[in-house]
Amino acid sequence: MLIYNRDSLDKNFLYMTGLDNGVFENCGLLFVQNGKMYVFATALEEEILKSLEEDAEIVMYKDKQERDDKLKSALSNYKTIGISFDSTSHSLYLHLKELLGDMYLVDIGNAFKNARMIKSRDEIEKIQKACDIASSVADDFPNYLKRGVTELDLSGEIDYQVRRRGAQAAAFQTIVAFGTNASKPHYSGANVPLKEGDIILIDFGATYSGYVSDISRTYLTGKPGEDVLKLYNTVLKAQEIALGMIGNGVQVEKVEKAVCRFIDSHDSFRGRFIHSLGHSIGLEVHENSYPQEDFEKSFVENMVLTVEPGIYLPGLGGVRIEDDIVVEKESCLILTTASKEAVTYEV
Amino acid sequence: MLIYNRDSLDKNFLYMTGLDNGVFENCGLLFVQNGKMYVFATALEEEILKSLEEDAEIVMYKDKQERDDKLKSALSNYKTIGISFDSTSHSLYLHLKELLGDMYLVDIGNAFKNARMIKSRDEIEKIQKACDIASSVADDFPNYLKRGVTELDLSGEIDYQVRRRGAQAAAFQTIVAFGTNASKPHYSGANVPLKEGDIILIDFGATYSGYVSDISRTYLTGKPGEDVLKLYNTVLKAQEIALGMIGNGVQVEKVEKAVCRFIDSHDSFRGRFIHSLGHSIGLEVHENSYPQEDFEKSFVENMVLTVEPGIYLPGLGGVRIEDDIVVEKESCLILTTASKEAVTYEV
Repeated sequence: MLIYNRDSLDKNFLYMTGLDNGVFENCGLLFVQNGKMYVFATALEEEILKSLEEDAEIVMYKDKQERDDKLKSALSNYKTIGISFDSTSHSLYLHLKELLGDMYLVDIGNAFKNARMIKSRDEIEKIQKACDIASSVADDFPNYLKRGVTELDLSGEIDYQVRRRGAQAAAFQTIVAFGTNASKPHYSGANVPLKEGDIILIDFGATYSGYVSDISRTYLTGKPGEDVLKLYNTVLKAQEIALGMIGNGVQVEKVEKAVCRFIDSHDSFRGRFIHSLGHSIGLEVHENSYPQEDFEKSFVENMVLTVEPGIYLPGLGGVRIEDDIVVEKESCLILTTASKEAVTYEV
Repeated sequence: MLIYNRDSLDKNFLYMTGLDNGVFENCGLLFVQNGKMYVFATALEEEILKSLEEDAEIVMYKDKQERDDKLKSALSNYKTIGISFDSTSHSLYLHLKELLGDMYLVDIGNAFKNARMIKSRDEIEKIQKACDIASSVADDFPNYLKRGVTELDLSGEIDYQVRRRGAQAAAFQTIVAFGTNASKPHYSGANVPLKEGDIILIDFGATYSGYVSDISRTYLTGKPGEDVLKLYNTVLKAQEIALGMIGNGVQVEKVEKAVCRFIDSHDSFRGRFIHSLGHSIGLEVHENSYPQEDFEKSFVENMVLTVEPGIYLPGLGGVRIEDDIVVEKESCLILTTASKEAVTYEV
C-alpha cells in the first residue's frame, strides 16, 4: 500500500510512522508484502526522519522524476496496490495510474478509517492528555469574561492557554460565539464585544503528540430568562441521556433516537438539533462519523468519540455541550472533565 | 463549474464567494453559463450564508440524496462541467462521475491557480494587513528571549501576539527552532530550552480577512563565531540579490540561478540551499510555486510571493530570511518590514 502526501499531509502517514512533528510534503510511505516500509523523502525532511523509530528504508530523491523512477522500481514485482481514494486527489490518482501502468489501484481508505477508530492504550493516553489540557482551559475560561472583550480576544486567549499547558497547537480553529452568533454552528468569531445577557458558546481542542481533544461549553451571563435556562438544561439532559446509554455493542441509532426524541418533546426546540450527535476523534478532529456498517452500526470498545448535542434558535442563540469519551465494555468513560453546571456570570 | 467541499474546505470556495468565516463542510458552489451562482448548503450554514454579498441562489438540502438530486437537476441542461482535479478527492470524483452520468468532467484546477496568482487591489490590501501584523510581532520577538524559554513557549507567544494584533489566526503551524534544530527546514518546535549561543529561526504568518502572510527571521545569541556571522550575512545578501532583480517580465530562472550561484560561491555553503526560493501566497500559504509555463516562467505584476533563501548545515544550524513581496512594473514592493539586522542577543 502507498500513502502519498502531495500538497497536504495524509494523517495515515503519521498513523503508520508514529511521527508527530514535520510537514512531510511530497513524502510517501510504501509497504510491500513482507511488511517492509519504505519512506520516500526529500532533503527537507532528512534531519527529521532521524527520529523515526519504525524500521524503514529511507529513499531520498532530488526531483519528481527520480521519485517516480524509484517508486516504480520498488513496485516492479507487484500487481496490486492499495491507496486511499479519500485522501488521494483525482490528479494524483491520474498521475499514479499513468506511472504504474498495468498495476491495479484498489481503495483502502475505509480500511484505514476503520482501523483508526479503535484506539490502542497509547493512543487513548495521548487523547486523555489532550482532554486534560482542554478541560483545564475550559474551567479557567470564565476568568477571562468581562464586558467588551471580543470573540477574537477570547479565542486568542484560549489558543494561548492551550499552548501554555503543553499542547503542540489548538486542535482546530477555536470557536467563540456570543449571543445570536451562537445559533450558527460553524461560526468561529469576529470583533464582536461581549454584552450583558449574551450566551457564550466555545468549541475548541488541544493537540498533544499528534492526537486531539474537542470540547464545547456554553456559559450564561446577566439574568438569563426561563427560556434560556430551559434551553441549557435541555441540552445538558440530552447529553446525560446519551452518556448513560453508550457502551460496547449498543446500537448508534438507539442512542441518537433517544436524544432526538427528548429534544423534540419540547415544543419550542422541535427540529432545532441540526447536526449529528458526535464523531470519532484521534489524529484528526472529524476522523469519522459514529460507527456505521463496518461496525454493525454499534459502539465498540476503545472507540473515542465526541458526544455533543446542541440546540440552535436563530435570533436567540444556541447551546452545545460536548465531551470526549472512550467506549468501554458496559458503559463509557468521559475523558473531558470541565464543569457543565449552569452558572451565570456577571460581566 | 462546480466547487465542492466534502471533508475539507476548497479555498476556491472562499475565492468565489468572498466569505472568510465558516466551515462550509459539504457545501458546494455551482456556476452555470449565464454566470448565475448556486450555493448548496445544509442548515448548519444557513445563518452564516446571510452574510454572503454575492448574488446567489441558496439551495438548502437535508441529506446527501436531496443534495445529489438538486445538483443533478440544476445541471440537467449542460454537457460539460469543470472541477479542480487537485482539490477533488478521487472518491468524490467517482461519486460525481456516477451521479452525473454522461456529463464530461474537465479539470479547471490550473485555471483557478493561475487566476489566484494575480491579486486585485483588495487582495493586496488584505495581505498587507497580514504582513503588518507579522512584521510587528517579529520586531517584538526578541523581547521574549531569555535563557530556558522553550521553542513551544515562544511559538505559543507568537501565535498569541498575532491574534492580539488583529489576525483571525496564525497562518500555519508556527516554527520556532533553536540551535541545530534550525537545520531542519520543516521542524516546528518541542520542549527544548534556549541556550546561550543558539541560532533561533522563526517562521510564521498571520491570517487577515482570509489572506495570509509568511515571514521568517533568524536571530543570533551569545557570541556567534565568524562562521555563523558569515552564514547569516550570506543568506541576507542572497535575499538582497533576489529582491533587487524581481520585477514584471523578469525570468524566474534568472533570479534563482543568481541566488544559487552566490550561495554556491562559498565553499562551506555549496549545495546547502535545499528548497525553492519562494512561492505564491494568498488565501493559502503554499498557494502555488513561482510562475511556471502559464506565465512564460516570468514574474508578473501583482503576483504576491515569498522570497526566502536559506542555508542549512546539519549539526550546526540554519538561517532563513523570508519576506513577502508584490511584483510591480519595474521592481518589487516588500510588504513585510521587520528588521533583518544581524543583532546578537544576550540570553
